[in-house]
Amino acid sequence: MTENITRIYARFAAETDGARIPASVRHDARRAILNNLAAAYGGCRDAAADAMLAVIAPLSGPAIAPVIGRSEVLDYTHAAWINAAIANVLDFDDTHLPTVIHPTSPIAPALFAYAEKRSRDGRPVTGRALIDAFSVGVDIACRIGNAISPGHYNRGWHITGTCGVFGAAAGVSRLMGLDAERTAWALANAATQAGGLVETLGFHSKSLNPANAARNGLLSALLAEAGLSGPPAPIEGVRGFLRVLSDETDATLLTEGLGENWELSKNALKPYPCGVVLHPVIDACLDLRAHNALDTDAITRVTVRGNSLLKARADRKVSTGREAQVCLSHSVAVALRLGRAGVTEYTDALVNDPDIRALGDKVVMQVDDSVPVEAAGVAITLADGGSLDAYVPHARGSLGRPLTDAEVEEKLRTLAALNAPAIDTRTLAATVWSLDDLPDAAVVMRQASLPKA
Amino acid sequence: MTENITRIYARFAAETDGARIPASVRHDARRAILNNLAAAYGGCRDAAADAMLAVIAPLSGPAIAPVIGRSEVLDYTHAAWINAAIANVLDFDDTHLPTVIHPTSPIAPALFAYAEKRSRDGRPVTGRALIDAFSVGVDIACRIGNAISPGHYNRGWHITGTCGVFGAAAGVSRLMGLDAERTAWALANAATQAGGLVETLGFHSKSLNPANAARNGLLSALLAEAGLSGPPAPIEGVRGFLRVLSDETDATLLTEGLGENWELSKNALKPYPCGVVLHPVIDACLDLRAHNALDTDAITRVTVRGNSLLKARADRKVSTGREAQVCLSHSVAVALRLGRAGVTEYTDALVNDPDIRALGDKVVMQVDDSVPVEAAGVAITLADGGSLDAYVPHARGSLGRPLTDAEVEEKLRTLAALNAPAIDTRTLAATVWSLDDLPDAAVVMRQASLPKA
Repeated sequence: MTENITRIYARFAAETDGARIPASVRHDARRAILNNLAAAYGGCRDAAADAMLAVIAPLSGPAIAPVIGRSEVLDYTHAAWINAAIANVLDFDDTHLPTVIHPTSPIAPALFAYAEKRSRDGRPVTGRALIDAFSVGVDIACRIGNAISPGHYNRGWHITGTCGVFGAAAGVSRLMGLDAERTAWALANAATQAGGLVETLGFHSKSLNPANAARNGLLSALLAEAGLSGPPAPIEGVRGFLRVLSDETDATLLTEGLGENWELSKNALKPYPCGVVLHPVIDACLDLRAHNALDTDAITRVTVRGNSLLKARADRKVSTGREAQVCLSHSVAVALRLGRAGVTEYTDALVNDPDIRALGDKVVMQVDDSVPVEAAGVAITLADGGSLDAYVPHARGSLGRPLTDAEVEEKLRTLAALNAPAIDTRTLAATVWSLDDLPDAAVVMRQASLPKA
Repeated sequence: MTENITRIYARFAAETDGARIPASVRHDARRAILNNLAAAYGGCRDAAADAMLAVIAPLSGPAIAPVIGRSEVLDYTHAAWINAAIANVLDFDDTHLPTVIHPTSPIAPALFAYAEKRSRDGRPVTGRALIDAFSVGVDIACRIGNAISPGHYNRGWHITGTCGVFGAAAGVSRLMGLDAERTAWALANAATQAGGLVETLGFHSKSLNPANAARNGLLSALLAEAGLSGPPAPIEGVRGFLRVLSDETDATLLTEGLGENWELSKNALKPYPCGVVLHPVIDACLDLRAHNALDTDAITRVTVRGNSLLKARADRKVSTGREAQVCLSHSVAVALRLGRAGVTEYTDALVNDPDIRALGDKVVMQVDDSVPVEAAGVAITLADGGSLDAYVPHARGSLGRPLTDAEVEEKLRTLAALNAPAIDTRTLAATVWSLDDLPDAAVVMRQASLPKA
């Protein structure tokens, strides 16, 4: 195992000159944060969020930190906790493609929550410092993920939780100005709190994984600051994180190009609140609908040609809106019939709608591994013998065709309109785009939440 | 994998008739709780506890629940958190021998903290209900541990944390009166929060493992009560706890004799605040000192004969008091020279005391695997050619020679006198012994703590 990886990361977090973070990475960071707020509006009224808030609100400490899209105010560690859950609950947050980590949900809420604390203490965290810390935190979380992928996730670890906690700990440590030694303690405190099972995906319990990653990462740094010291090699040691939570580790990926190549560059933003494998299929369906006078009742068959991963993940029958987020036939049916595949199209009601079901039953999956994961073909056969087809080489939101900044803003507007219409998304977006010049980063979460009830 | 293990445990926790828990098990439960308070007095002024309290006290919610041996009052989830850490920090708490789980530290603090909440709500938890819930919680935690031992710990999982969280969740669920379905959700919420690395042992970070097990177990039940549902097979599922955190599982141990044989019967209480492998050696040294007019300056060699596990775990040089808790030569030296091996003998100062070091340097370990782990022989060679030897077949505190109730009370008195002399240990012990008749279990922690500062 690479020597001193913990120390290398600690120094990277503590000592990297923010001026060395490229402008494109800073822009990716702002896009990820804006996208995360959008995803949070999608999730802020989810039943899991309601249950978590119902438990934690009466247990909260000093109520200073806002909850995205809501009027509750919590102690800042629990604001990190609930905001991470809310942003991730629909899996509509970002995806670091090499690892399927959702990096922003466990990391940004911890940083913003800590920024609120600092603002109250009269020592605000600047937007620039927050972007620095976020970029560094995401990089560490995703690099650890790279080194243990794909085995770690395949074994059953919810990698957003297990790796996210390191990113939150490293990022908050940096905002605190901890030296490398204390940052290493924070990473140790994070390592021993890493957890979260893939078994929970599709269930409310899942939301505990990003939530704990955010809060425990934040606490790891607070505890290190207070002197809670850790072992010297919590990541790479004999019974450290890598050996215990991974069967195979590619250690070169941990540090190769550190400070030169940034993992934020491999971070994709979703246009649809469902599994990324479904995105090119939805694009193709929406294209077919947009360019043809399509009578969906006349469809006799929809043949989807795609990668075997699409079949493995999504070719299945489901009965709930949540399950439908990884269901091919439902995604095809809503895209063709309704011309949309947003949050309102992944509901229990629509899954059980007879017309949607009938159209879904006509979907056939044809595996073709010459089609990459970010591509798909859709061929429609009509009752009159006619046919239509479309092939999408790069799904919207993939690295080959990233969402435009305007599309990210549109996502924010659409989702806020759904669950938090009182939010001034124009101001909020402008604030996030100008984070590098913002004297107090806490302003973001204040604008992102509703007035205190 | 056994089907429905989660459901079996959920029903066991929710539906077991307390009257079926044998009197001997109830007595073991009371002993474990009294011993846990003793261990907590040993640890309540530890630097790790100070750092954790410094961080969490200003973040605490409604301050209702006391901290053992201290005057701070915290919200009840954080009282569970800190009390678990305090009780375990010296590893002077109990040991479930088949697994080396310290079962009481992650479980009892969660139950007592919840009892405080219920007492404040005017619906006190009786002592009898608490003993029922504790017995059931310990049983589930230790049974899971049995099924995955020894591989799980050997891989690097701090089993007290990983299994303890299930015990806390199951126990609190029972106190809440959750039905089997919600208890299963609590177990799911616990499964996805299981964690803690062996790499942290000997360092402050370690204390996060029992602390999180206690608080997260408690939260798992609160969240289940509020409707946070989980997957149906979080323990035994394809990507459930057993498959993800263990390479080999003996599934029969999960349920064999459930409700008939109780794991509390295999729970040992320590007379000395150090690794159990060292206990028979210390006994032999103290015996030799008690029965002979021993001039330790005249010793030229101390030969310890014991199991290879003793050599593997403890035959090493150390430089701190904490490391000395698994150091053969230091343990022999203090026992022979000072006639004691208590908390005050495992300090940095004594480890670096020249006389103790000199005597320790004369210790030689001789492996003999015909000697069981709970036994040891000690042979002393003297400068005048004389020799002394002693063989201890069953260490004090082992299942073959358990601490008497009076010895557990003595442990409580000694450790409270050290760090919390204002505690009325006589009253406290009487309260714990009479738990089965106590109308409000919260009384225990109130008696165990100092008046609010």
